[in-house]
Amino acid sequence: MAKQQQNAISPARDKNFPEWYQQVVRASDMAENSEVRGCMVIKPWGYGLWEQIQAQLDVMFKETGHKNAYFPLLIPVSYLEKEATHVEGFATECAVVTHHRLELQDGKMVPAGKLSEPYVIRPTSETIIGAAFARWVQSYRDLPLLINQWANVMRWEMRPRLFLRTAEFLWQEGHTAHETPEQAMEETCKMHGVYEEFLREHLAIPVIPGEKTEGERFPGALNTFTVEAMVQDRKAIQAGTSHFLGQNFSKAAGIDFEGREGKREFAWTTSWGVSTRLIGTLIMAHGDDDGLIIPPRVAPTQVVILPIIPKEEVREEVLAACHQLEEKLRAESAWNAPLRVEVDERDLGGGVKNWEWIKKGVPVRIEIGPRDLEKGSVAVTRRDGGHRDKSFIASDEAVAQMAETLLSIQSNLLERALAFREEHTKELQSAEEFYAFFTPQNSGQPEIHGGFALGHWGGTAEEEEALQKESKVTIRCIPSDPELRGESGVCVITGKPAEGRVVFAKAY
Amino acid sequence: MAKQQQNAISPARDKNFPEWYQQVVRASDMAENSEVRGCMVIKPWGYGLWEQIQAQLDVMFKETGHKNAYFPLLIPVSYLEKEATHVEGFATECAVVTHHRLELQDGKMVPAGKLSEPYVIRPTSETIIGAAFARWVQSYRDLPLLINQWANVMRWEMRPRLFLRTAEFLWQEGHTAHETPEQAMEETCKMHGVYEEFLREHLAIPVIPGEKTEGERFPGALNTFTVEAMVQDRKAIQAGTSHFLGQNFSKAAGIDFEGREGKREFAWTTSWGVSTRLIGTLIMAHGDDDGLIIPPRVAPTQVVILPIIPKEEVREEVLAACHQLEEKLRAESAWNAPLRVEVDERDLGGGVKNWEWIKKGVPVRIEIGPRDLEKGSVAVTRRDGGHRDKSFIASDEAVAQMAETLLSIQSNLLERALAFREEHTKELQSAEEFYAFFTPQNSGQPEIHGGFALGHWGGTAEEEEALQKESKVTIRCIPSDPELRGESGVCVITGKPAEGRVVFAKAY
Repeated sequence: MAKQQQNAISPARDKNFPEWYQQVVRASDMAENSEVRGCMVIKPWGYGLWEQIQAQLDVMFKETGHKNAYFPLLIPVSYLEKEATHVEGFATECAVVTHHRLELQDGKMVPAGKLSEPYVIRPTSETIIGAAFARWVQSYRDLPLLINQWANVMRWEMRPRLFLRTAEFLWQEGHTAHETPEQAMEETCKMHGVYEEFLREHLAIPVIPGEKTEGERFPGALNTFTVEAMVQDRKAIQAGTSHFLGQNFSKAAGIDFEGREGKREFAWTTSWGVSTRLIGTLIMAHGDDDGLIIPPRVAPTQVVILPIIPKEEVREEVLAACHQLEEKLRAESAWNAPLRVEVDERDLGGGVKNWEWIKKGVPVRIEIGPRDLEKGSVAVTRRDGGHRDKSFIASDEAVAQMAETLLSIQSNLLERALAFREEHTKELQSAEEFYAFFTPQNSGQPEIHGGFALGHWGGTAEEEEALQKESKVTIRCIPSDPELRGESGVCVITGKPAEGRVVFAKAY
Repeated sequence: MAKQQQNAISPARDKNFPEWYQQVVRASDMAENSEVRGCMVIKPWGYGLWEQIQAQLDVMFKETGHKNAYFPLLIPVSYLEKEATHVEGFATECAVVTHHRLELQDGKMVPAGKLSEPYVIRPTSETIIGAAFARWVQSYRDLPLLINQWANVMRWEMRPRLFLRTAEFLWQEGHTAHETPEQAMEETCKMHGVYEEFLREHLAIPVIPGEKTEGERFPGALNTFTVEAMVQDRKAIQAGTSHFLGQNFSKAAGIDFEGREGKREFAWTTSWGVSTRLIGTLIMAHGDDDGLIIPPRVAPTQVVILPIIPKEEVREEVLAACHQLEEKLRAESAWNAPLRVEVDERDLGGGVKNWEWIKKGVPVRIEIGPRDLEKGSVAVTRRDGGHRDKSFIASDEAVAQMAETLLSIQSNLLERALAFREEHTKELQSAEEFYAFFTPQNSGQPEIHGGFALGHWGGTAEEEEALQKESKVTIRCIPSDPELRGESGVCVITGKPAEGRVVFAKAY
């Protein structure tokens, strides 16, 4: 039983966090690199998680009045160019389509049929959706226009990392148009709030909502709001953003309408998105040295039943008991949905199977063997405890308690993540404290430093850029919470007067 | 009331079917052309229908043991080349990515960062998924591998038509690998059956399932099975296909495994897909001269409630009654799902609103005005009847009957489509009959001819191609149904001996 004494993932989180992450993605069978530079294959377990995220977010989008639609993958280069900051922001990372067929030349297929105007594969869709909005919006009666798109996008990343930064990724992008700036800002903030709630209540990740500084805004936006998560190497991940675009894109695309006074006006637009990056954030926020831990609310399978079959004669009886339990559990529900339960019937050793599910992070495992049948009991193990914390309980009791167990795991994960963040968030008063906080604290783990720092900031955009270059620390956000923001004071870096505190951190 | 005397769509189906189709797509607000050549924008009502199709098919795929995953959008050209027939089949219609950024030159953004190997945007994913399968399959224990992907694909169509043939479209592509040819063929036929059932039971479209002749096979397949629908101009639409790929793609991609005898063997693979083309098929199968008719089972909204507000004083009362009814209806269910109900509160004239919903093809409309409130009744209109067939019934009765009404509309649409197909399907004995059948029968409608012809075929692939060139008639399939196939006989075109009958038709 030597295997049970050690952890499934090597290296451990506190030895080499980036490598631990790669190993967890591999061991949990979530995704893998493909032969296409920077593009990943999302395997069934990873995609199953994305399906849950998608379905649950989609309900929230529809409840807030949005409808889904679909727009072209390809964007004419001239469209991107219409908004100057926007094209500048994306030009360096666009996949460009220049031809529309292949032709055999000297025994090799080469591009042929050159296009008169090249297209880029959408890195984001403000411009192409703006063109459609310009056709759809004629009068103030057509507003607000509340649209969302689930799609793939491409940004040619130079340093890809599975889920966190890939050349192609899956996401949703909300795009809305409004009559007044107040309504557009209200929408921007509402969706910012939806993201905060989704991360907290569905992914069990507490985030700090706030506004980005000018230098970190979406190219072309007037305001960018973000939700910032802390993961277990104490770095920040920007998990979702919501942008107030003012009239920049409506002027570029010609989204104008006849106003209440009969005059032509330009619409006020917003956009907002989250992506498969949420999966990377979830792994880094909750995983442990045995692999992934998926919050039950979004787990593709919440409970796995593992038949223990020591000899062939008991197979039928054990499997029958497993499927009976499966059916009873499926009749229960949590978060207004039937429990997602699976029996793993594969012909593999019990230990191997058990460890596979530990690494995959399934919230609850139930083992049933011939001895359990005799006693009418089952062995239940929660993934958020130690992996040896089995409890033997009556089968019917396991069914009756399961929803509660899942809720308890969910809230435990949230509390744990919140406690971790609070432990590693510090209020700083001086530059000296600042540099000490962000200096790696463990020579074996060069990346691990203090965490999130709250401190006053009164510098310029140039000073912010210089700080980042020198220290790799960025301003994650100007927090929305007035308590975090605090009163005016003195900038910890520049010593200049500052309106309030910001959140500083190193980030993915 | 002149408007009520005429139909909403002009031209009528029997005047100019292709133009009628364009007008219905526009009037139902399903989709529109974009500025990107051949690419469409799928608007919320069209996308809502796609969401229903997706969700309902996805259940069927999962019930048959498949899991969803996601693979890269881009395919290296060298991958396509690995299967000779495959690359030949798709080379003429590939969007090719050759650069990975844009650069400002003489005030214009131009492609820069040339890729060492170009990529194509997937026209289908056999080769890129095959590469992943080659990594995943090591032993016979890893088989069968049953995967599905929901994705966008591109085929550079020269004559695009909304939904039916667009450069970019949305689809699902199933890809599976098996230990033996028998298992792979069983899978191919199973999914062929799933498509037939889905079309019949969900889209109310009766299809003829069968096998494609050699010339019509998927490039690289050994057998291609199809489901063929007849639409109202009596043409055929290939609505879905399922392919037995033999070992062609497993050899090209190296999907081999250690067999039960310890020897390396190549897997046997299949692929199968349906696309947003289903929406075009549905429109052409069920629409009438007032617009679209959506089968209730897949309608994004099954029942729309239209408040009639002749004067401001009654607004509150009428709206309250509408929402009360909405809630009661939502507590009812059909096809194991709560009814999808919407109140249209928009501040538009009742007639305008009513016609909008007729054109959108919502299955049931309910009008409520102040006079109805007094009587406790509502006015219910089914979309599959004439648009003046209102029935006034008690509100509670409308609730109690609604599920049954929806089921009745669903089966009426299926019966209607089946009767239409039967009326326009003829068994032919001779070339003379053949040419008469496929000659346009109405000079005002040059496209409308006989319909589906069942006749013996004993020609070669070359003779089939010649027939198509000369008459525009293709062999849609060798029908699976032994009754349709019949006994051996004499080929209606070549006079040669023939094994059985095939389905001839003109097609989209």
